[in-house]
Amino acid sequence: MATHAKPQRIESFQTHPNQYKHWRLEFDGGVANLIMDIKEENGMRPDDYVLKQNSYDMGVDMELADATERLRFEHPEVRAVVVTSAQPKVFCAGANIKMLASSEHGFKVNFCRFTNETRCGMEDATHNSGQVYIAALNGTAAGGGYELALACEKIYLIDDGASVVSLPEVPLLGVLPGTGGLTRLVDKRTVRRDIADVFCTKAEGWRARDALKFELIDGSFARSEWQTGIAKVAAEAVAANPARATEGITLHPIAVEIGENESRAYEHVKLNIDADGRVCTLIIKAPTSPAPANAAALMAEGCKTWSMATFRQLEDAIFHLRFNHPNVGLILLKTEGDAGLVLAHDKLIQDNQDDWFARELALYQSRVLRRCDNSARSQFALIDEGSCFVGSLFELSLTSDRTYMLEDEDEEVTIQISAASGGIFPMSTGITRLAARFPRNDDKVQAALEAGAVAGPDAFDLGVVTMAPDDIDWDDEIRIAVEERLSLSPDALTGMEQNLRFVGAENCDSKIFGRLTAWQNWIFQRPNAVGDDGALTLYGHPTRPKFDFRRT
Amino acid sequence: MATHAKPQRIESFQTHPNQYKHWRLEFDGGVANLIMDIKEENGMRPDDYVLKQNSYDMGVDMELADATERLRFEHPEVRAVVVTSAQPKVFCAGANIKMLASSEHGFKVNFCRFTNETRCGMEDATHNSGQVYIAALNGTAAGGGYELALACEKIYLIDDGASVVSLPEVPLLGVLPGTGGLTRLVDKRTVRRDIADVFCTKAEGWRARDALKFELIDGSFARSEWQTGIAKVAAEAVAANPARATEGITLHPIAVEIGENESRAYEHVKLNIDADGRVCTLIIKAPTSPAPANAAALMAEGCKTWSMATFRQLEDAIFHLRFNHPNVGLILLKTEGDAGLVLAHDKLIQDNQDDWFARELALYQSRVLRRCDNSARSQFALIDEGSCFVGSLFELSLTSDRTYMLEDEDEEVTIQISAASGGIFPMSTGITRLAARFPRNDDKVQAALEAGAVAGPDAFDLGVVTMAPDDIDWDDEIRIAVEERLSLSPDALTGMEQNLRFVGAENCDSKIFGRLTAWQNWIFQRPNAVGDDGALTLYGHPTRPKFDFRRT
Repeated sequence: MATHAKPQRIESFQTHPNQYKHWRLEFDGGVANLIMDIKEENGMRPDDYVLKQNSYDMGVDMELADATERLRFEHPEVRAVVVTSAQPKVFCAGANIKMLASSEHGFKVNFCRFTNETRCGMEDATHNSGQVYIAALNGTAAGGGYELALACEKIYLIDDGASVVSLPEVPLLGVLPGTGGLTRLVDKRTVRRDIADVFCTKAEGWRARDALKFELIDGSFARSEWQTGIAKVAAEAVAANPARATEGITLHPIAVEIGENESRAYEHVKLNIDADGRVCTLIIKAPTSPAPANAAALMAEGCKTWSMATFRQLEDAIFHLRFNHPNVGLILLKTEGDAGLVLAHDKLIQDNQDDWFARELALYQSRVLRRCDNSARSQFALIDEGSCFVGSLFELSLTSDRTYMLEDEDEEVTIQISAASGGIFPMSTGITRLAARFPRNDDKVQAALEAGAVAGPDAFDLGVVTMAPDDIDWDDEIRIAVEERLSLSPDALTGMEQNLRFVGAENCDSKIFGRLTAWQNWIFQRPNAVGDDGALTLYGHPTRPKFDFRRT
Repeated sequence: MATHAKPQRIESFQTHPNQYKHWRLEFDGGVANLIMDIKEENGMRPDDYVLKQNSYDMGVDMELADATERLRFEHPEVRAVVVTSAQPKVFCAGANIKMLASSEHGFKVNFCRFTNETRCGMEDATHNSGQVYIAALNGTAAGGGYELALACEKIYLIDDGASVVSLPEVPLLGVLPGTGGLTRLVDKRTVRRDIADVFCTKAEGWRARDALKFELIDGSFARSEWQTGIAKVAAEAVAANPARATEGITLHPIAVEIGENESRAYEHVKLNIDADGRVCTLIIKAPTSPAPANAAALMAEGCKTWSMATFRQLEDAIFHLRFNHPNVGLILLKTEGDAGLVLAHDKLIQDNQDDWFARELALYQSRVLRRCDNSARSQFALIDEGSCFVGSLFELSLTSDRTYMLEDEDEEVTIQISAASGGIFPMSTGITRLAARFPRNDDKVQAALEAGAVAGPDAFDLGVVTMAPDDIDWDDEIRIAVEERLSLSPDALTGMEQNLRFVGAENCDSKIFGRLTAWQNWIFQRPNAVGDDGALTLYGHPTRPKFDFRRT
């Protein structure tokens, strides 16, 4: 292991264009320019690394993630997002190597997961919100820099005789282009696998002419034609996509109170951490006010509407759990409040999927749900008195590894699946969570969708909860389940969960988080990468790495 | 790392029912009984471990693999293969833990790969040869024992109040059920993911009643009804599948001469090892005699017919490379001989896919080709003077990471793709290698299939070779490519190749080798499993493992 590995706490995942250190967001009608200008000295651990050559760390990617979300909600008029650089000759050198080499294994994995989600979000915006991402590589895009470009719908490289695209991770660092690069090359861009093999082992990359020939880019312009060329491409994307709306909503900061033991109390979400017990409770609260009357009223509520506020708070809580509480192995998911109000808020969104904001909101909820699927923590949903696991909150329970539901005598504890679970919340594999739960069994999916409000025994029979203990057994059952879970190897659990959660055929998206990430995590453990003589450890040092050349 | 880790050389991968130590193969009309009776003291490293409780090591699985192949070729009359145990109360306890704990990382990975291929082969026999595998669990099937059952089409468990099915890897060993178990539970048997979660964390497993309720098995019989019950199930499988033939062929031993530096000279295959150079040359020779006149003549040649003999020799060479030559990082694949004769032999097989033996032969070639896809070594195909990369041998070149083809002035060096590459050699993903090479581009697939014999420049234009250097550049180009490849991190190369080779949607089969294997390999590196205090290392010791409970 690299001797300098440090934990890296992140105090806040929120930011705003006014606070960006590394990006500029500029607007020109239907075009947004997302301009990378990374400040070398403004990394998250400036004592450990300097962000040279537009190389990025988690702070840079948090700003990028923020920009992509604001573009969708605050700027529905934008139909083309041009990602480019303000620095001469370099678009982006990828993830900062010294940052990676000096980070703990867990941080590396979490950093990659977050950056992967950001890039999948860019593709989601392109495909589902008509905001087409265009990579305008006005300088060299290396490693994660080219992987960022790969997440764009179109890639243009300046033809200046010097700028290249490259994936030098394998030859220079002994790790993979793990931010989707390998998968997107062959599965998204359909670059031939042998060409991809040559490209990924060629540290120096290819300039515009070869890059275009081998379909690593979609076009190139000489420097003199660069501005007009890119402007024309952007204008075409704008013309091809109808504006969703002329005015967006504002994403206000997420308010939170930090309590004892780093508990986080948001308006609709509460996260209680039991660090010694290695468990946390995540409580989602139902709305307390009626649903907006219609799509216009929904938009008037903007980011404060329950559906949006709750999922934003949930997302923020997830980030804190991932990065700041590695010891927490188990999430106990609970809900509380008025189930009728949850269903009413959900219904307005479901019924208004032709309205841009309601549609955008469902897409956002889907992205947060997919972050839950990709969690490296165990998750049990607990359905008991006062809970409201209905509609979008029942969908949230479907991201759990198990669901326990109290069978109470009076049958007051019920759950209800809504039509939303039948379609608007796809997993990364492209199918619904109900379809993944009941593979090749449409009858069970339909029965669940049509069941209405059901108590424990019926929910158990429908197969939508794992166990339905009665009052007498409930406490013991949960206590034992939690104790048992927490006694197991965390690595084995992560591996097991990642293999059970993504049932069905895999696509580009899910392969990035499954096949590619798993191999990268393997490599991130191997001495050839992270040992004292490993390539990642020694990058930038005069010493050459020493490899154990045995292959498996 | 476990301190006792040892390399494990395997002198021969060939065996015969007469030599089996651990299995008995008995026949009763259309039913074969494959009876496991593992001899405790007959493990491959008897000083290190004892094969208690029908637990297996590589020697046991080599016999199983041999039996499955012989059943297909030597016993086409068999339509049901009942896999059962001769030992009281235990079907199979899975892979021997002390064997795993005392094996090197590379050996563990290779052992899992081989056992996975054996189990995929059982499914292939069930689906494509009408030899239905039936697991008759007359005692407890734990871990790899139950995973072996999962590879069968049907699973029956004795209802004796004691016998269980279980996957205790996660709770007891801190590793995954990595021989396909996790994937087959949810993707093949469509066990609900939360039920699978409970099952895979429950060391003690489930007896027949619960196992049946949760669909982990297909049926159960009391002891008194066991023999007749299983016999009835087997008889039904026999009745449902027409006999392919009454008489098979005999699989004779594969002759090989071992030469200097452990070179292996077979009749049609030559493997030259340059251990210091970490490279090997694998040469496949064309037939020297005409193709059999028809299917009957093909069958008369039996395992000696060129198509069969060559792929058997190739498979044997692959095993030796994998297990005995971990230092070899790169396979240089060559062919030599009369291309016309290769095509003639291929054509007979392609044209007779309604003949059982010709069909079985193509299925076998496909399995060997899939072993090449799953190789953890880089592979370059070299096409130059005297080579015969046509038909099935061109398909073999498509398993390579790159293909170099000499552009000679006289255009004597040519390749030719035959119709076989359009269908009868599917990858584990279910698509052809041409379809994986040209994703979402049927035109290119068709052009390749229809091109006929082409020289370097045309092959390059078709996209079926990576580079086509001329005489002047050839030697340098190859030398530099080899040197560069061998300088790279072997782990990064394995990860890269595994991500570039399997383009397209993933299914149960490919997920076993991709997602599941990659996560298992990760866990096989983690101190929580293989460290001095890891669960795998300490299994069977009185000391409890100590976990670093941080999750990623």
